[in-house]
Amino acid sequence: MEIEKEENIIEEITNLIENKKIKDLRKYLESINSADFPSILEDLDDEKVIMIYRLLSKEKAVEVFVELDPDDQEKLINRLTDTEIKNVMNEIYMDDAVDLIEEMPATVVKRILANTKPANRKIINELLKYPDDTAGTLMTTEFIDLKENMTVKDAFDFIKKKGLKKETVYNCYVLTVDRKLLGVIDIKDLLIADREELVKDIMDENVVKANTLEDQEEIIKMFDKYDCIALPIVDQEDRLVGIITIDDAIDVLQEETMEDFEKMAAIAPSDDTYLKTSVFKHAKNRIVWLLVLMISSMITGAIIENFEAAISSLPILVAFIPMIMGTGGNSGSQSSTLTIRGLAVDEISTKDILKVMWKELRVALLVGLALAIVNSARIMIQYNDPKIAFTVSLTLMFTVILAKQLGGILPILAKKLNLDPALMASPLLTTVVDTVSVLLFFTISTLVFGL
Amino acid sequence: MEIEKEENIIEEITNLIENKKIKDLRKYLESINSADFPSILEDLDDEKVIMIYRLLSKEKAVEVFVELDPDDQEKLINRLTDTEIKNVMNEIYMDDAVDLIEEMPATVVKRILANTKPANRKIINELLKYPDDTAGTLMTTEFIDLKENMTVKDAFDFIKKKGLKKETVYNCYVLTVDRKLLGVIDIKDLLIADREELVKDIMDENVVKANTLEDQEEIIKMFDKYDCIALPIVDQEDRLVGIITIDDAIDVLQEETMEDFEKMAAIAPSDDTYLKTSVFKHAKNRIVWLLVLMISSMITGAIIENFEAAISSLPILVAFIPMIMGTGGNSGSQSSTLTIRGLAVDEISTKDILKVMWKELRVALLVGLALAIVNSARIMIQYNDPKIAFTVSLTLMFTVILAKQLGGILPILAKKLNLDPALMASPLLTTVVDTVSVLLFFTISTLVFGL
Repeated sequence: MEIEKEENIIEEITNLIENKKIKDLRKYLESINSADFPSILEDLDDEKVIMIYRLLSKEKAVEVFVELDPDDQEKLINRLTDTEIKNVMNEIYMDDAVDLIEEMPATVVKRILANTKPANRKIINELLKYPDDTAGTLMTTEFIDLKENMTVKDAFDFIKKKGLKKETVYNCYVLTVDRKLLGVIDIKDLLIADREELVKDIMDENVVKANTLEDQEEIIKMFDKYDCIALPIVDQEDRLVGIITIDDAIDVLQEETMEDFEKMAAIAPSDDTYLKTSVFKHAKNRIVWLLVLMISSMITGAIIENFEAAISSLPILVAFIPMIMGTGGNSGSQSSTLTIRGLAVDEISTKDILKVMWKELRVALLVGLALAIVNSARIMIQYNDPKIAFTVSLTLMFTVILAKQLGGILPILAKKLNLDPALMASPLLTTVVDTVSVLLFFTISTLVFGL
Repeated sequence: MEIEKEENIIEEITNLIENKKIKDLRKYLESINSADFPSILEDLDDEKVIMIYRLLSKEKAVEVFVELDPDDQEKLINRLTDTEIKNVMNEIYMDDAVDLIEEMPATVVKRILANTKPANRKIINELLKYPDDTAGTLMTTEFIDLKENMTVKDAFDFIKKKGLKKETVYNCYVLTVDRKLLGVIDIKDLLIADREELVKDIMDENVVKANTLEDQEEIIKMFDKYDCIALPIVDQEDRLVGIITIDDAIDVLQEETMEDFEKMAAIAPSDDTYLKTSVFKHAKNRIVWLLVLMISSMITGAIIENFEAAISSLPILVAFIPMIMGTGGNSGSQSSTLTIRGLAVDEISTKDILKVMWKELRVALLVGLALAIVNSARIMIQYNDPKIAFTVSLTLMFTVILAKQLGGILPILAKKLNLDPALMASPLLTTVVDTVSVLLFFTISTLVFGL
């Protein structure tokens, strides 16, 4: 929401509160989109927040609650009465309930569960048992289940009776008596179907579904590929136990992307947002990789030390080290980033390794040649020394080829070894390329100049 | 789709073709998900592809066509008759038609448009006029528009008559006679409403909508924030002209993410996938930044040259250059990546610049101190030279602070100047940090050792 719009809303709310126009305020609050509340409530004091929250309709209150940050949810829960918490826990979707319980401290969890009806408590406990990052932890257990011998009219009545919840009802699932998934019906097909038709005659039997233990990355790929808005989730016995809705899939996609960015910048992934993460946690997330890379880069230093004699007799060589190291690192990062992303979106598979190597080789020859020419010209103009020009350009050529080969190969190898390809991104790759390029440079120099 | 499943499908298809069981084949093809066809058709020869395509039902044929890569679409169009192209262009959604026309060469476009009915041709031409990357280019023009005085029964009849298309009908839009957007009705609310109720009484007047000229990045953020499955798009006069569906929003999200990864690795963004991009194009996308960064890194070389005297009298100093440059670059990349992502997802805004600087300063002090201690210990063990230990550690401290400040500030400044923050990612930042850290190192060395 634009800042201007937000400020207008806050002003209007404050006005209504000051003038004690509670009825108008209640009506006004209902007209605000639930997703806009967090940023509005953030700018109001705690007294106003709880007052506003209590003026919301039951349904809206839960919608708003789910949108809040965990910190704000906790603050709010601590001010709510048991009855109010009960209302939240009766209306909340089970996947949101699980998220909530995972984020809250133990004492708050205790109070939440005490105000949750036994049936829901059981579901929550079941959902909490799934391993992290699997379909089971993402799914909600609310969905419309039809029987195959219902007529369309029966289905309508059933849906009306069962009640419509926002997340669940664009797709209805047709189950056998032992809850195996027979088919799916899009609500639109139900809408235009003849009232006397049987559910089994209009359902689609080719259901795209996933298992509770499927990795969440695969779930996202399925949403992307099949353009679905909900994905049915079955257990090991092929019984339907839940559905994942597209908004949750998008959240996971965003999270996974953020994690990839972090890993590729040598940062330990974190769930929190930048501004909410403490300084200490930031430092902790960054220090390990920096230490590893710092210690690795000492190898490059040791190589340089080894060539001290060469440096003493031709100190100008040192001036080219940053350029060679920098270009090597950048060339390698380009290749590794493209390979890592290709693997992440399934465009590249591990069996493409030779294709990638062959492509990177040709790209490296083209790019390396261009860089070598520019570089030679510059050295000739500045130093008029063809031997240096030759040495530096040859090193550059080899460095680019090597960097691009490593950039292409390492992520694929990581994937083959069931490691995360993102770990092979620029920081680690650059450190490796640095070492090899400096070694190459001094070896070629020693040969050319007979040092 | 898993490779195994794909191989089974191909085997089954080949079997059915060989045994001339055309009726069974037709039935089997209908049971395959449209999204699975591209990878299946890829492994079959052209004769089989066109045969299979012609066996599909009209509706399925269009669904499959839309899923294909542009290359395969072109190949297919070249083998289709005019009547078959007409079928595609009658059934295709207008946003997919625009994508198709943007991808095809001029001769193919001519043939496509010749087989498009005038009404659709007009819509396509209108859509092609919107600036790149705006809501207008993403939207489709098919949606259900209701009038406020219709009853729910009228609405049902209208929807049945107008026909249900997959993309459009979970939300219906209520318009005035001059096509201004009054409200939205979720199809579920229509389903459970009393048949005699008026549309205007059940519609939601607080419609989240966007303008045709809105940037696609903002559109994605709206989908993410409001968890909608379709977003109505209005023109400058607030008339409803189209809707964007969530599957297209996800595609854009994926594209934008890929672009960010590319920019952050110093690659010119490209629409094509890695394997489909030619070697020449890959080289072209990568060479510009490599050249710019190579030339910039020469400044670092020039600084080193300037301190030739210092190097000659204390050549061991050179051995620390890779470690200092590397650590500086990595520290800076961490900060810039987090800031760039924070800006991209609107968690950080330009007014947070002081907050970011203050956070990065404290993180840098913690991280820098840890690195300096490890580094001092190592130098004392290896060289037993407190002066070198002091010089290198002090440089490291300053470099980490500087790198993290620049990493936090530069992306925010870029945003303020309406540049893309992603340009301030590791490659450019590393080059800047390299230069400054080397300058720092030699300045401190000169002072400490009196060189």
